[in-house]
Amino acid sequence: MAGQEVVLNGNNNNGSLNLKPSSDDTRGKNIQCKAAVAYGPGEAFVLEQVIVHPPQKMEVRIKILYTSICHTDLGSWKAENEAQRAFPRIFGHEASGVVESVGEGVREVKEGDIVVPIFNGECGECCYCKSSVTNMCERFGVNPMKKVMDSDGKTRFTTLQGKPIYHFLNTSTFSEYTVVDSACVVNIPPQLASSLKQLTLISCGVSTGVGAAWNSANVNAGSTVAVFGLGAVGLAVAEGARARGASKIIGVDINPDKFIKAQAMGITDFINPSDEEKPVNEEMTGGGVDYSFECAGNLDVLREAFLSAHEGWGLTVVLGIHTSPKLLPIHPMELFDGRRIIGSVFGGFKGKTQLPHFANECIHGVVNLDKFITHELPFEEINKAFDLLIAGKSLRCVLHL
Amino acid sequence: MAGQEVVLNGNNNNGSLNLKPSSDDTRGKNIQCKAAVAYGPGEAFVLEQVIVHPPQKMEVRIKILYTSICHTDLGSWKAENEAQRAFPRIFGHEASGVVESVGEGVREVKEGDIVVPIFNGECGECCYCKSSVTNMCERFGVNPMKKVMDSDGKTRFTTLQGKPIYHFLNTSTFSEYTVVDSACVVNIPPQLASSLKQLTLISCGVSTGVGAAWNSANVNAGSTVAVFGLGAVGLAVAEGARARGASKIIGVDINPDKFIKAQAMGITDFINPSDEEKPVNEEMTGGGVDYSFECAGNLDVLREAFLSAHEGWGLTVVLGIHTSPKLLPIHPMELFDGRRIIGSVFGGFKGKTQLPHFANECIHGVVNLDKFITHELPFEEINKAFDLLIAGKSLRCVLHL
Ligand SMILES: [Zn+2]
Ligand SMILES: [Zn+2]
Ligand SMILES: [Zn+2]
Ligand SMILES: [Zn+2]
Repeated sequence: MAGQEVVLNGNNNNGSLNLKPSSDDTRGKNIQCKAAVAYGPGEAFVLEQVIVHPPQKMEVRIKILYTSICHTDLGSWKAENEAQRAFPRIFGHEASGVVESVGEGVREVKEGDIVVPIFNGECGECCYCKSSVTNMCERFGVNPMKKVMDSDGKTRFTTLQGKPIYHFLNTSTFSEYTVVDSACVVNIPPQLASSLKQLTLISCGVSTGVGAAWNSANVNAGSTVAVFGLGAVGLAVAEGARARGASKIIGVDINPDKFIKAQAMGITDFINPSDEEKPVNEEMTGGGVDYSFECAGNLDVLREAFLSAHEGWGLTVVLGIHTSPKLLPIHPMELFDGRRIIGSVFGGFKGKTQLPHFANECIHGVVNLDKFITHELPFEEINKAFDLLIAGKSLRCVLHL
Repeated sequence: MAGQEVVLNGNNNNGSLNLKPSSDDTRGKNIQCKAAVAYGPGEAFVLEQVIVHPPQKMEVRIKILYTSICHTDLGSWKAENEAQRAFPRIFGHEASGVVESVGEGVREVKEGDIVVPIFNGECGECCYCKSSVTNMCERFGVNPMKKVMDSDGKTRFTTLQGKPIYHFLNTSTFSEYTVVDSACVVNIPPQLASSLKQLTLISCGVSTGVGAAWNSANVNAGSTVAVFGLGAVGLAVAEGARARGASKIIGVDINPDKFIKAQAMGITDFINPSDEEKPVNEEMTGGGVDYSFECAGNLDVLREAFLSAHEGWGLTVVLGIHTSPKLLPIHPMELFDGRRIIGSVFGGFKGKTQLPHFANECIHGVVNLDKFITHELPFEEINKAFDLLIAGKSLRCVLHL
């Protein structure tokens, strides 16, 4: 394959966006480009040249223009969560870019389209995709154990020496180019091209949070909400609840610094459980909130969130990642109090179907994406961006490729 | 009070129903009548004369005509469940009868009305009663810890020696007369008087099961259902699912004798987990049922019921009584598979509001109540009726008072 390779390191993105790269030189060939490769759990990312193979049938090769870092990247890189351990690997699942080329059979995007990759795909054919009540997908749903492409069990990344580099969450966006299944590519309306940087956030975090409020919980005007854990996802829940007209949005976090940011996102009341006897003050909520959201990935917090919901109708939505095996900290008889609990993945959004419209809503101000971008860095400083997230200093640091 | 007492033991119910007893002799006075009193956990019921005090403000005194026995009576009498231990006590909560007299302020029923008492009352004033999504009630909801009347903390039953006899589940129907809060009395349309014996079953078991299918799960035509535990409540779930047009209703029980009865109730497939590797065969359900119902009160069964539901949309409804403290045998991450779990109390029915219509539906054949009455005995043979239930021989044994 060496004869087919095209080296594309760097200089075609100097200042202004190159949204229509000529694919004539690269289509059907291996691309050599820069990627951030993880060689072991928690080991610093190595910025190096890798080979990105052409997209196979029903696959799309994307030139990544922006990517950011989510806690799921962090947990999987450190091997702290349940994800498959597989190294070397290219992490990253929140990004935006432009289609470089498409494999056989791909009709819904073409070269030059601006796109957002999604870790929770939509094949359109399975029983879940055909159901209106779920955003699961039998073939391309989120799968932390997956490390190769679905069609042939191989990777589309190799080192310059030909060694496979594993994929992550259907996307692997810490690379100048990546290959994803077409089921995991969302076509963004071309008139939103100038907002592509902001739209990176709908690739995971903002969709997960806003969608949990809109789709999973269906928060309605005048209702009361409590959000436990005020990272980017929790704040996106608050932003979604604010957009729906919730009358009270209580933010709960042990870090008082979060309150300042939280106020800008629509949080009306802040509770620091370290200061309070009851994490969600009953007086504040009149017997409990209508909706509570667990975004902390902590079982004690999950129980607090469950009990903060009003008996009879309160709904708790779990978004946090909990390392199993653990049991839900709920007694079966407590279900008789009428509280309900559900999980939410990718905010309940059917990505390919619903995200183009959601992108439009965001850019037209229904949801404010800019507030989530606290830092921007060149791709080469990805290790610094991870440090910012670990230190709790950033909501989202957008990396420019 | 002795001078006020009226002795009413027995002979006014010889063969035909006396639906309009003259209350002129009893109104406002203590009534001496027969009751089945429990003096200690699991001790045989003593049929003896007791004093039933007049109804106080917003209370109703009911002449019980029929009562039957539910597993909750059994568990509480044996002190096996979480109910308050309180003896001597008059158990029983599934019954029908006629209003003997009403206390001050009662408007919705009058002397001579036929009624069904309910253990899960409806005050009409609290936030739950005013909500359309729950059948909880702040003051008169089911409360296994309650043993006295709500208004004054006293009992309306005493022994002939004046010692208090405790109430049970807002109702205490193992007595020729009982006093209940008007919030716990359902007015039955008078044209259904001739079916009062059958309507005893909507006082608890049939409403609990059918309502779980109709209100809590909202089973729809063509859907698939699994019912775990085929006692009266489980079979009522099946009957409710059949009435809604479910395409497949799988009954799961370790007792193969249950299948014969189950077939008559609409069960289309029977699974004995002792015989099968998987309790609900995936082939049988095509990946899981739309709705599963846990009616066994067993945590292993609860987990099986949860996992028998289809990923993405399957709903598990818990009806069984689980002795706490135990945790739900579900991993938080399993919620991300899109399965949901809720509890159901009294089938989600708002008793006073919805049971009159439900009674009509039952008597007009939407739900077949007769199939649930497997035995009938005179009230005096209540201990024999308990033996039948314990031995698993009866669904419902209706006692004639
Ligand atoms: Zn993410
Ligand atoms: Zn699919
Ligand atoms: Zn009962
Ligand atoms: Zn009420």
